[in-house]
Amino acid sequence: MAENNGEIKLFGVLGSPFVRRVQIALKLKGVEYTYVEEDLKNKSDLLLKYNPVHKKVPVLVHNGKPLAESLVILEYIDETWGNHPLLPQQPYERALARFWSRFIDDKCLPAISKAAWNVEKEEREKGIEESSEAIQFLENELKHKFFGGENIGFVDIVAGFLAFWLPVIEEASGFTLLSSEKFPKLHKWSEEFINHPVVKENLPPRERLLGFFKARHASITASK
Amino acid sequence: MAENNGEIKLFGVLGSPFVRRVQIALKLKGVEYTYVEEDLKNKSDLLLKYNPVHKKVPVLVHNGKPLAESLVILEYIDETWGNHPLLPQQPYERALARFWSRFIDDKCLPAISKAAWNVEKEEREKGIEESSEAIQFLENELKHKFFGGENIGFVDIVAGFLAFWLPVIEEASGFTLLSSEKFPKLHKWSEEFINHPVVKENLPPRERLLGFFKARHASITASK
Repeated sequence: MAENNGEIKLFGVLGSPFVRRVQIALKLKGVEYTYVEEDLKNKSDLLLKYNPVHKKVPVLVHNGKPLAESLVILEYIDETWGNHPLLPQQPYERALARFWSRFIDDKCLPAISKAAWNVEKEEREKGIEESSEAIQFLENELKHKFFGGENIGFVDIVAGFLAFWLPVIEEASGFTLLSSEKFPKLHKWSEEFINHPVVKENLPPRERLLGFFKARHASITASK
Repeated sequence: MAENNGEIKLFGVLGSPFVRRVQIALKLKGVEYTYVEEDLKNKSDLLLKYNPVHKKVPVLVHNGKPLAESLVILEYIDETWGNHPLLPQQPYERALARFWSRFIDDKCLPAISKAAWNVEKEEREKGIEESSEAIQFLENELKHKFFGGENIGFVDIVAGFLAFWLPVIEEASGFTLLSSEKFPKLHKWSEEFINHPVVKENLPPRERLLGFFKARHASITASK
């Protein structure tokens, strides 16, 4: 990029799907930034200063001004750097993209979390059912190569969790949610998404993530 | 408004703070619409068709195209009708408005709900503490007459719950969260907000709401 973007810092942790959203968006826009790895067990004073409300990553700091919450940051990035638009151009399509992004965060992720990490087996089974119902809505919504059409857009970036993290969780936990029989369109989308060159170079190391999730699964199943 | 806005329908229920957000936004923009009262105990086929995901109000239908989720609808209204902007103009300020709106929905409202409607007394007391912490962030954030500056903006509309519904819940439940001693700026803002002419004519009847909340409080305290 020829333009001067000012100083851009991103505070994150290696395995976070929320941080990766921001990294993929910045990369798609061609925006250079400095990445700062946080230790969530020993949060830095800077993180606590920049995100006193949630004390979480990602935090994007642009010319000293901090922003938290990945969906808020994605919209900021899209409004600040106009190339490779993430949201569609028309208000109605923009609204739908916001709706489905929020749906992923408010419905899909909590259901998947319940399916994978609830200590009660019965609750985990309920979680699988709820996840499947929620994912079905996304399957129906997928009408092109990507949610964003022919190019990766806002909803694709937000849904990235399903393409990369979910299969690792499935492997660690011994269940299958995103089968190619049940969700053929999402399955194909997942392949397209994780093999997109910008996405591919901005994913965490699979083996490390798998080790982390396997340990987590073992601790869950050991407790009941 | 001279311009032809097409057909605009809003599906809602009388007492909902989320529906009122949309009504206030449309009124501020000077957009005429048809209001359709729903019965949530017997949801209409149209509501289920328009919002199959959440099956909730508000739903805005603009020229046959439905949208759900009040924050999504507010952004749509702001992008579709440019007069009386609800979000600020600059990306960073827009991002902050989105951040605080989401904070109200994700942190303040669940905490207040816990304070008022949890069947366990201990949980209610925790809810009061959590609400107070969350509201303190908003108190610190309020730097002008409104969150939006000199005029009502996006965050004000979203925060409307605190100005009108919360005091009614406080009266019904016998606790005080939003005292003028503890939160002087928010207290003053509440007065300004509910007395704004557009807001004033778009609030539900206080006595009916009080009756509803009193009955709910009685059923909560009777169960323990």
